[in-house]
Amino acid sequence: MNPIEKRLEVLRTALVQNSIDAYLIPSADPHLSEYIPDHWLIIPWLTGFTGSAATVVVTDSFAGLWTDSRYFIQAEGQLEGSGYQLIKPKAFQTADYIDWLAENLNNEVHLALDGRLFSISQLRKIEKKMTGKNVTIDTNCDLISDIWSDRPAMPDSNAFDHPVEFCGKERTLKLGEVRDAMKRLDISFHLVTSPDDIMWLLNIRGKDIKYTPVLLSFAVIGVEQIMLFATGKKIPAELTDEFLKLGISIYPYEEITGKLSALSEGSSILINPATTSVTLYKSIPDTLRIVEDISIPSRLKSVKNKTEIENIGKVMVRDGVALTRFFFWFEQNHEKVEITELSVSEKLFELRSQEEGFLGPSFETIAAFNEHGALPHYGVTKESDSLIGSEGILLIDSGGHYFEGTTDITRSLAIGMPSEQQKTDFTLVLKGMINLVLAKFPMGTSGYQLDILARKALWENGLNYGHGTGHGVGFCLNVHEGPHNIGPTAPADNKTIIEPGMLFSNEPAIYREGEYGIRTENLMICYEDEETEFGQFLKFDTVTLCYIDKALIDKSLLDSKEIDWLNNYHAEVYEKLSPYLTGPEKLWLKEKTELL
Amino acid sequence: MNPIEKRLEVLRTALVQNSIDAYLIPSADPHLSEYIPDHWLIIPWLTGFTGSAATVVVTDSFAGLWTDSRYFIQAEGQLEGSGYQLIKPKAFQTADYIDWLAENLNNEVHLALDGRLFSISQLRKIEKKMTGKNVTIDTNCDLISDIWSDRPAMPDSNAFDHPVEFCGKERTLKLGEVRDAMKRLDISFHLVTSPDDIMWLLNIRGKDIKYTPVLLSFAVIGVEQIMLFATGKKIPAELTDEFLKLGISIYPYEEITGKLSALSEGSSILINPATTSVTLYKSIPDTLRIVEDISIPSRLKSVKNKTEIENIGKVMVRDGVALTRFFFWFEQNHEKVEITELSVSEKLFELRSQEEGFLGPSFETIAAFNEHGALPHYGVTKESDSLIGSEGILLIDSGGHYFEGTTDITRSLAIGMPSEQQKTDFTLVLKGMINLVLAKFPMGTSGYQLDILARKALWENGLNYGHGTGHGVGFCLNVHEGPHNIGPTAPADNKTIIEPGMLFSNEPAIYREGEYGIRTENLMICYEDEETEFGQFLKFDTVTLCYIDKALIDKSLLDSKEIDWLNNYHAEVYEKLSPYLTGPEKLWLKEKTELL
Repeated sequence: MNPIEKRLEVLRTALVQNSIDAYLIPSADPHLSEYIPDHWLIIPWLTGFTGSAATVVVTDSFAGLWTDSRYFIQAEGQLEGSGYQLIKPKAFQTADYIDWLAENLNNEVHLALDGRLFSISQLRKIEKKMTGKNVTIDTNCDLISDIWSDRPAMPDSNAFDHPVEFCGKERTLKLGEVRDAMKRLDISFHLVTSPDDIMWLLNIRGKDIKYTPVLLSFAVIGVEQIMLFATGKKIPAELTDEFLKLGISIYPYEEITGKLSALSEGSSILINPATTSVTLYKSIPDTLRIVEDISIPSRLKSVKNKTEIENIGKVMVRDGVALTRFFFWFEQNHEKVEITELSVSEKLFELRSQEEGFLGPSFETIAAFNEHGALPHYGVTKESDSLIGSEGILLIDSGGHYFEGTTDITRSLAIGMPSEQQKTDFTLVLKGMINLVLAKFPMGTSGYQLDILARKALWENGLNYGHGTGHGVGFCLNVHEGPHNIGPTAPADNKTIIEPGMLFSNEPAIYREGEYGIRTENLMICYEDEETEFGQFLKFDTVTLCYIDKALIDKSLLDSKEIDWLNNYHAEVYEKLSPYLTGPEKLWLKEKTELL
Repeated sequence: MNPIEKRLEVLRTALVQNSIDAYLIPSADPHLSEYIPDHWLIIPWLTGFTGSAATVVVTDSFAGLWTDSRYFIQAEGQLEGSGYQLIKPKAFQTADYIDWLAENLNNEVHLALDGRLFSISQLRKIEKKMTGKNVTIDTNCDLISDIWSDRPAMPDSNAFDHPVEFCGKERTLKLGEVRDAMKRLDISFHLVTSPDDIMWLLNIRGKDIKYTPVLLSFAVIGVEQIMLFATGKKIPAELTDEFLKLGISIYPYEEITGKLSALSEGSSILINPATTSVTLYKSIPDTLRIVEDISIPSRLKSVKNKTEIENIGKVMVRDGVALTRFFFWFEQNHEKVEITELSVSEKLFELRSQEEGFLGPSFETIAAFNEHGALPHYGVTKESDSLIGSEGILLIDSGGHYFEGTTDITRSLAIGMPSEQQKTDFTLVLKGMINLVLAKFPMGTSGYQLDILARKALWENGLNYGHGTGHGVGFCLNVHEGPHNIGPTAPADNKTIIEPGMLFSNEPAIYREGEYGIRTENLMICYEDEETEFGQFLKFDTVTLCYIDKALIDKSLLDSKEIDWLNNYHAEVYEKLSPYLTGPEKLWLKEKTELL
């Protein structure tokens, strides 16, 4: 019996002891955000699957793991011999584990989960599917703490100031904007559960989560006062003083439930049901009217301010210089020394580290050669690390946090002579990226309306990719930031529209299992174009600066608009990056960015 | 005081007598469908506004009418001097009257409405917005019956058989499919409120509603029995006998609430909250578990069967012949005799009536010259009727019900010499229509993902249109049929995907207020294209057969794919229609369909 099987056995014993028929485990922490600290990485520890999104259901005779198509190939490998079955959801981004529960659990079933790790909207979905069945759900059940002996401690980093010269807006102004919105909504309290919302609001950053410059924290914003829940010593003294003046009181992290349940004077509280845990939700006194919507800071921070946009421009130059140096180094050395996926990742880190204001990678670098590239979110490990050989496609998806912004870029590189299929695939993906960034659309448009622009050329050739096209990007914050996105699925409320100042990734792709993956990703920012009698129109501007490998382009598949875009882009890349490059680097980039 | 003002005064008196602060009136009948009989046309009688979609709110000091952008120009005209204020919703397809209620009604308010005319989901939205306010809602309040003295009677047509040679599937098979779906959902009853669902299920048709071949009826489908609510004499004896054998009992229309409230033996009932009235909803016994979704017949009938698709092909030839004759007649006579919008409509009716199996127009013909064309749903009246002059654009949107299918087609015609702007507008609209019909997309795609294809060329030029791009079309049933559509707004549940066999309209447009409107509309049907490792791909095939006016095309704006589509389409139009045309008509169509 391997360690994973043993843990499953121990968990099943706990199920029996507690008379539980099915236990549910999510990829989540008490903030229900995408980025979770090691302490909460229950699923990797329990099952061996290291992908970022999954749900596990364990019964006495069944152990299943649901994840999305990004991770199918990876999960199949990692779950082999684990005792867990990989269940592929039928549609993009669905929670089919709930369907499974409804179909496979009969009457009089006792279901259990840790209410800190499920959002109230997830619980409602489960409850809805179970209507009419005689099911009890224990939402206060933590079976993991007892059996996970060497569990990593809760993170405990210190906060640091994020000055206004970087972020462009004083705390007081942001607080004022949030409170104005609360007033309009007639809300007395606003529970903010997402650490990045709190970082943005208070102009602070932390290092509690790998790849994410945040402090694990909750906040309750009142009309006059703010309660910030983060261990006291985490906030430096000079900030504590300023916070006090702003009416911000700091409490230990764990006190959130107690303080929530003691809220009395107000009449209503705004929460986001998708990020508010069952435990927090149940702590809110019945006397408060609960208003549900995404958080106010989340909407406000999605639109970058003028200073942020200017700073993003600066950061893109630095990041582009680091990338150019990397690709130059790679081409000079690839045939001389052994370069592996891990050493690619290390070299990129080294070069980014030389740039001003670099805080660290914005996510785990994906350096994936050939068949590894077919795993959209491949994370290289010592075991999987491959030598970059002499033929194939190298996909590199990486990014950095800088004080002045966050980057996220993917390039796919031809090693040796690319095949016709590789060139066709690459060019169709490139067409998609270009057609999306060239979009012009009226104010009021949502991301799901634009998604097809990135897919059309692929669809016409019977190809597709199983993930979204673009995500929002934080400003020295989460590399994936909502509520805006560009993808095939419309959010249930249809409310998020694309606004000037929103920053998006643009990353169509193609994955050929067992062969290679191709993805090209730039960040782009939305700006106002012309206003006509038919409304205000918007456009995108690419901000990422790095050449695109022409060796993979089949020019005959591009139309003149697309070729123009590429040539203009390459001219801009050279113009903005070359002043910071050495002579040989400059010469090399000149060639890479020559007219197609 | 004009009659409209008088009616408003009488209504306000009734408000005072009943201590009502605000009374709500929708464009609706007890089936909450789009097509309503004259008996329920309360808003046109009360306000003078004849558009098909509106909501009216009356208080002691306010009288407002909400409608969507299709009707803004028309409503502004018709409401002048009525005492009603036109309120334009902020966004496409929103129910801003609810926001208005929430913002303008203070505490302790008594709101009233006729629960037969509001869906339960509408009521929930109202209640949700009013949360926290001390509002009572009387949902059983009919103030109109008493004050509308010359109100049209309830319709009372007879049902007739819709034979299987037309509709392609026996009643028993359809019933079996519905019951299979009920079984899968573990449902004991299914309340069906939409007449077209019932017509489809029982293979009958009626003439209760103008332009819509249905019988006003409700049905409750049980596992063994079906209760059909329609006045007894409406069903011919030969059908009644067959119905009895199938377990279908016929009850008077009014008995639906009583029979619903007497349902006992079952455990659950499926209803569509969007088409189930508050009154019906409240009649359902508390002992039944209510499952909410769109109706099963609605999903099933949206996918046309093989016979239906073949018959649609036949009907398109007949409709195309009638249209070709019409346009030939128009061109021959336009300069010789006076032709008005009304006579266009009459001539079209006359020519369609000569075709086999024609039952009547599928909606009120829109024949709109110049500025009238800028009203997307212009309905010509004796007062508005215009002479078709010697210069401008004539927009004709018309359709017919045939036993073998329903048609819906729009053509915009140049009269005299078109301007450059008119040619550009027409060509951009045409580009949109062609790019949508040329779409290739994977199974799982929804209409909102494709909408941009029809708009992209317009958006690139700062243009747009304020309505959806495509609606489903019934088979000898409602010309607008759900749940599928192609438009900018995704349905809240995101569940409707495009399936092979679905019939759509494809109708991008442009409206220049005070000048002209241009719309080109074909129907298209979805079919299976190739299956690759990335999934099953789908495409569309245009089924409407009628030439497109080349005089309005600026060829330089079309790419080779678009020109090919048009030339191929025109070749098909000529090939399929010419066998039925006279010599001169044939010669004329040959010229109209010559290569661009």
